[in-house]
Amino acid sequence: MSRLQIVIPLYPAVTHLDFTGPHQVLSRLPDTDVLVASMGGADVEAEGLTFTGLADLAKVERCDLLCVPGGFGATDAMLDEAFMDEIRRLGGGARYLTSVCTGSLILAAAGFLTGKRAACHWAWRDLLRPFGAIVDEGRVVRDGDVITGGGVTAGLDFAFVVAAELAGESFAQAIQLGLEYAPSPPFQSGRPELASPEVLAVVKARLSPAVETRVAAAQAAADRLNAVS
Amino acid sequence: MSRLQIVIPLYPAVTHLDFTGPHQVLSRLPDTDVLVASMGGADVEAEGLTFTGLADLAKVERCDLLCVPGGFGATDAMLDEAFMDEIRRLGGGARYLTSVCTGSLILAAAGFLTGKRAACHWAWRDLLRPFGAIVDEGRVVRDGDVITGGGVTAGLDFAFVVAAELAGESFAQAIQLGLEYAPSPPFQSGRPELASPEVLAVVKARLSPAVETRVAAAQAAADRLNAVS
Repeated sequence: MSRLQIVIPLYPAVTHLDFTGPHQVLSRLPDTDVLVASMGGADVEAEGLTFTGLADLAKVERCDLLCVPGGFGATDAMLDEAFMDEIRRLGGGARYLTSVCTGSLILAAAGFLTGKRAACHWAWRDLLRPFGAIVDEGRVVRDGDVITGGGVTAGLDFAFVVAAELAGESFAQAIQLGLEYAPSPPFQSGRPELASPEVLAVVKARLSPAVETRVAAAQAAADRLNAVS
Repeated sequence: MSRLQIVIPLYPAVTHLDFTGPHQVLSRLPDTDVLVASMGGADVEAEGLTFTGLADLAKVERCDLLCVPGGFGATDAMLDEAFMDEIRRLGGGARYLTSVCTGSLILAAAGFLTGKRAACHWAWRDLLRPFGAIVDEGRVVRDGDVITGGGVTAGLDFAFVVAAELAGESFAQAIQLGLEYAPSPPFQSGRPELASPEVLAVVKARLSPAVETRVAAAQAAADRLNAVS
């Protein structure tokens, strides 16, 4: 039997936990290879950590599951035509299209989420709309073979959903036990509706300088998508 | 005011999520540098991901908080005298001594946990005993300025406890919201007492080939520690 191939495409200024969490889970699946790739196989700097030894995305022949992480660089990435060509090529042949955080914007810009329900980081999920995706506030959202996770740490819950789909729930539970995934946050402020108004205001203020640029980038990417379709 | 310095020492076959989770949280603290280092600044391979651009551990002058990740390589690391010299040197000058997963074995081998309560990955926590540490089954355990987390994903809960200690709970909550840390595992098998007997048996069987070697390594490291003290 051939091995299952999972491909994680990286780009500059990706958020590292968006993919290190899923990688730690999915790389423990049986008969599965998890390939982490970038344009030209170049090293990728991701919020203070640098990843090397990456595969060249253009030389990856195919994959069964494409898992696109998010990050501050996601909006630049979705306007990078060479990168998006590879996303469209690999995604077009994949059984499963998946993402974590703002990685769903990249899937959307590739045309894979039109008419599909999808998750995204809470602060950026409205950017899915110009692409015709249906915004879903769920932490892990499944629409057929499209499985998307919410912001950053949702990648862990996402990864266990994917692991159960690929290898069965019992196998996924064994990985969960091995990684001791019984989360217990010391406080509860991980969603806008849980956070205090003060904390929400601080985070929104911190993100606000990026809003205009990202809205414009999403619109530009949506215009390109709609021009070809 | 001088900036707070957090140092994360890596070694071969570290478990990447043990430190990428904490790094993603702690690198968002104000006036804080998170330095990821290895012996000679060499690239480190960690369960399928390779990290580059690391600081040379021997050239790191000091730190305020030492955060030691765990992994399959932890038992080799605690018998590597050159590595342990740096752990003892940096830890000796640190305000906070911290670890995730089997990283506490390295702190213990350095003599930092004698008489202290500490967490560890559930499968390996008994290895703390020869060092005179007091095994604690908590997910995040604090004993004075020693803060230790349980297995792998406990590193996230650990990191938010540390973030609140260093920057206040409100700031830590803002980071939690930014990283959307409102975990929701699709099934509950993340601790031995939660897992089914079948899943527990599978994981124990998978770990069993390593038990004899790790018990011997911990005993050898404890003998060295007891010989000097």
